Amino acid sequence: MTNSKFDTMPAMIFARSSADWELDPLLARDTVAIGDMPLSRALLIKDATYPWLLLVPRRHEAIEIADLDTIEQAQLMSEIAHAGRTLKALTSCDKINVAALGNVVAQLHVHVIARSRSDAAWPKPVWNAVPPRDYDKAALDELLATLRQRLTLTPL
Amino acid sequence: MTNSKFDTMPAMIFARSSADWELDPLLARDTVAIGDMPLSRALLIKDATYPWLLLVPRRHEAIEIADLDTIEQAQLMSEIAHAGRTLKALTSCDKINVAALGNVVAQLHVHVIARSRSDAAWPKPVWNAVPPRDYDKAALDELLATLRQRLTLTPL
Repeated sequence: MTNSKFDTMPAMIFARSSADWELDPLLARDTVAIGDMPLSRALLIKDATYPWLLLVPRRHEAIEIADLDTIEQAQLMSEIAHAGRTLKALTSCDKINVAALGNVVAQLHVHVIARSRSDAAWPKPVWNAVPPRDYDKAALDELLATLRQRLTLTPL
Repeated sequence: MTNSKFDTMPAMIFARSSADWELDPLLARDTVAIGDMPLSRALLIKDATYPWLLLVPRRHEAIEIADLDTIEQAQLMSEIAHAGRTLKALTSCDKINVAALGNVVAQLHVHVIARSRSDAAWPKPVWNAVPPRDYDKAALDELLATLRQRLTLTPL
């Protein structure tokens, strides 16, 4: 059975593993874990101003998108699109903002943010725009439960 | 000859054409055209503060990344990675910033920006950070010539 060509497919598709990958402590501090997509850990930023996700590819020492191989890049884009569609369906927002900046935290991470014309920073980008606002605990739990259901294969 | 399976491959891969696509006038105003990648038009932002590219998928009415089909999304990611690698090799920058925001101009466009620890906005994102600075004409012409050679299949 182990000679079946299908048995080896996952290893071919994701040849590199998530071994040695650890979430950067600054990213961990500002987020709540949602769960794992095939490539990325999905996190929610602790700022109730906007529904704001972070996708962090579980690849050791990846800093730039070009540090991922081609199949991982395509997978990351597919996860970005899925996260954006999910946020849009959930929040009826006006626009999804997507960004991989990394000037402060080097570990490759992608922001996926639901923006509304009525939000505190619109139409400016969210960074340094307004101070973060705490989530109400019940609202946070409900949002996390929904995101875990719709977004991830493996809740943490 | 037209029955060869190879003749139809480009049409299968990019089933949708760039028909009816036109560059948004605001994006046109702030940029110089570099040329066309397979999916995106590559543009240089007229701001000498940072080497700053815009990639605009030539797809009518695309606003969100999720408006592209799966193969176009993968192609866009591949063009983003290629643009980032090219900028990094050319400028020896410290970090590539990638962003698809679109709060002001709806037409889907992706910023790919070469950031240096010594640039005027570091480590902040570039938007609204410092006023744009004009390129010296000779420097602009040289940068455009290099980018046309390394980045695009079809100089405009």
